Amino acid sequence: MPPALLLRSPRLLLGRSRALPPLLRLRRAPGFSPSPLLVLPSHRRLSAAQLADPLAAAGVEEAVVGFVTGKRKATEVAHSVWRSIVRKGDTVVDATCGNGNDTFALLKMVADERGQGRVYGMDIQDSAIDSTSSFLEMAVDSHEMELVKLFSVCHSRMEDIVPKDSPVRLVAFNLGYLPGGDKTIITIPRTTELALQAASRIVSSGGLISVLVYIGHLGGRDELDIVESFASSLPVDTWVSCKFEMINRPVAPVLVLLHKK
Amino acid sequence: MPPALLLRSPRLLLGRSRALPPLLRLRRAPGFSPSPLLVLPSHRRLSAAQLADPLAAAGVEEAVVGFVTGKRKATEVAHSVWRSIVRKGDTVVDATCGNGNDTFALLKMVADERGQGRVYGMDIQDSAIDSTSSFLEMAVDSHEMELVKLFSVCHSRMEDIVPKDSPVRLVAFNLGYLPGGDKTIITIPRTTELALQAASRIVSSGGLISVLVYIGHLGGRDELDIVESFASSLPVDTWVSCKFEMINRPVAPVLVLLHKK
Repeated sequence: MPPALLLRSPRLLLGRSRALPPLLRLRRAPGFSPSPLLVLPSHRRLSAAQLADPLAAAGVEEAVVGFVTGKRKATEVAHSVWRSIVRKGDTVVDATCGNGNDTFALLKMVADERGQGRVYGMDIQDSAIDSTSSFLEMAVDSHEMELVKLFSVCHSRMEDIVPKDSPVRLVAFNLGYLPGGDKTIITIPRTTELALQAASRIVSSGGLISVLVYIGHLGGRDELDIVESFASSLPVDTWVSCKFEMINRPVAPVLVLLHKK
Repeated sequence: MPPALLLRSPRLLLGRSRALPPLLRLRRAPGFSPSPLLVLPSHRRLSAAQLADPLAAAGVEEAVVGFVTGKRKATEVAHSVWRSIVRKGDTVVDATCGNGNDTFALLKMVADERGQGRVYGMDIQDSAIDSTSSFLEMAVDSHEMELVKLFSVCHSRMEDIVPKDSPVRLVAFNLGYLPGGDKTIITIPRTTELALQAASRIVSSGGLISVLVYIGHLGGRDELDIVESFASSLPVDTWVSCKFEMINRPVAPVLVLLHKK
């Protein structure tokens, strides 16, 4: 009974019976030569949220008041703040592609007719890059696809990927494990710290580092400690570090936003 | 050189040379008989912010994005969220009147032509009630003034003041000392805890407890601990407890918002 299935789950089953292109396109920045990368064909399910137009998503008021009243998630607060800061034609970085939801949302924010906008996406797991790439193949047009550069590499190496002459408006992190993936593969404090340091070097004045820390898994709290330690160490004359969190839900994700003045 | 004085300070000097009414009107809820209260005439200065129309103040988007980028204060985030939740005709509580800024903002949110809106304001310091009352006398009309009930009483006793049949949409706290007042008189953890418990009993479903905790004085951190402990103890099925804070400014005020589902 597929209709009942659909009612029970918000996920749409599009693409389950369709074979995807055998090798998904990955784009690399000029001069970057990562180790050979094999991206396997994938059958995946897209959620309704993934297919939704992010431009129709919550504004800051709706997201923040919704967060306060329990109707919206921290990730929606993050996206709404991004939309207030990111402009068409900007260069942005998705430091942890995961299933590609943020990469997609960021692409919609920067995609411009002149083709100047860029999203540099990375993830240490090949399966995440595969997932992101196949999602984008289905969800965006070829013009927008040209604006995305995906790399299977640790986020601590983002400076190897983003061209030095590109002012970066936003670096987005989702810390934890890949939803639906191998939960034993998680982002870890040491490389996260290096990645945050790298992000703080490449983000431009007026830009933002957005860190959503999932803490419901083993090691999640340790990673939050590293993020908070890094955020609180940023000099107050050049950075604004703030944190939004639920305090009667101990495993709810924590949003840390770092604005470079 | 008064013009130079004005340039150096955003404060306006209105009222400095005018005698205020010798006894300012205080209104009491029916059935409440506090100890006799003498409110002395006062010469006070009103800040530009106090005189500004709060309805022209920042919306949630402007306040939150401004908070993230260092241009807006936590108190502006609080006010913007209040405006999204409080409606004309509501009953609200200012648990710590201080200089009356919040009382004034709340009054503007609930004041309605039918005269149903109510602001119950309290402060343990007579000088704060004096200050709030004289500010309101100058800033609002007599119709609006009728909607405010001020009491010189500890915030832990708010249930003695607010009529039992009045659903309360918002209880607002500013914890710390009275700006411009005696810094040795501060709100203290024990009565703050009792006041939060009282607020959680009187606030209605769909309502909010808003707590702005100033932590830059001796005892400030202890009070924040009590607020966080209370907030984190609220059951997740009936409360949403969240916290907004700056993390590279250790003495910046912390905003805790408690929404009753």
